[in-house]
Amino acid sequence: MIKVVAKNYIKADKLSEFLTIAKQLVKDTNEKDAGCIRYELFQDTSDSKILTIIEEWDDMKSLNEHMQAKHFKEATSAFPDFLEKPGEVNLYEKLA
Amino acid sequence: MIKVVAKNYIKADKLSEFLTIAKQLVKDTNEKDAGCIRYELFQDTSDSKILTIIEEWDDMKSLNEHMQAKHFKEATSAFPDFLEKPGEVNLYEKLA
Repeated sequence: MIKVVAKNYIKADKLSEFLTIAKQLVKDTNEKDAGCIRYELFQDTSDSKILTIIEEWDDMKSLNEHMQAKHFKEATSAFPDFLEKPGEVNLYEKLA
Repeated sequence: MIKVVAKNYIKADKLSEFLTIAKQLVKDTNEKDAGCIRYELFQDTSDSKILTIIEEWDDMKSLNEHMQAKHFKEATSAFPDFLEKPGEVNLYEKLA
C-alpha cells in the first residue's frame, strides 16, 4: 500500500474554483481508477486555504496510472493558477 | 471526524530511537484511546527521515483526551531531541 499526502496552498480568491475541480477529481478517481483504496479531500480547520488530498493506493502501478488518467490531467492542469505557493507531495509506506 | 497529519523531520542518528517510541505510541493509542478511528505511522519513500503520523478521531474531545494521556505525554516528551527541524501538524475536516 502507498499513502500519498498532497498539500496545497490555495489563493483565497481561487478557493471556490479549486474546490469545484478537486471535488470532481475525488469523485472521478474513486469511481474510475483501479487500485484506489481511498482518495479524499480535506480542509485545514485553522487555515481554510490549505487543501490536502490524502490517498491510498494498492501500489505504485495504480498511482502512476491514476496520474496518467484523463480526469487527473484535466483537473490538475488548472491547479498551478490556483496556488499561493508551491505545495508538498509526500509518498509514504506504512510502518505501524 | 477530525483528520490529523503530524509530519516530523528526524535526525538520521535518532531514527532508530524515534521509531521504537513512535511504534509503541501507535500501539498504545490504538489500544487505549477512546474515539481513535485510525492512528498510523508512515515513512516517506524517498526521504527516510520524514516520519508522519496520520490520525482519525471521532471529534476534538477524543483528540484532546489523547494528547492528555500518559502514554502520549511520555512518548512525545522525548521527541524534541529527535527533530532535525520543526515539524508540521495539520488538523483537517473532510470535504469530499
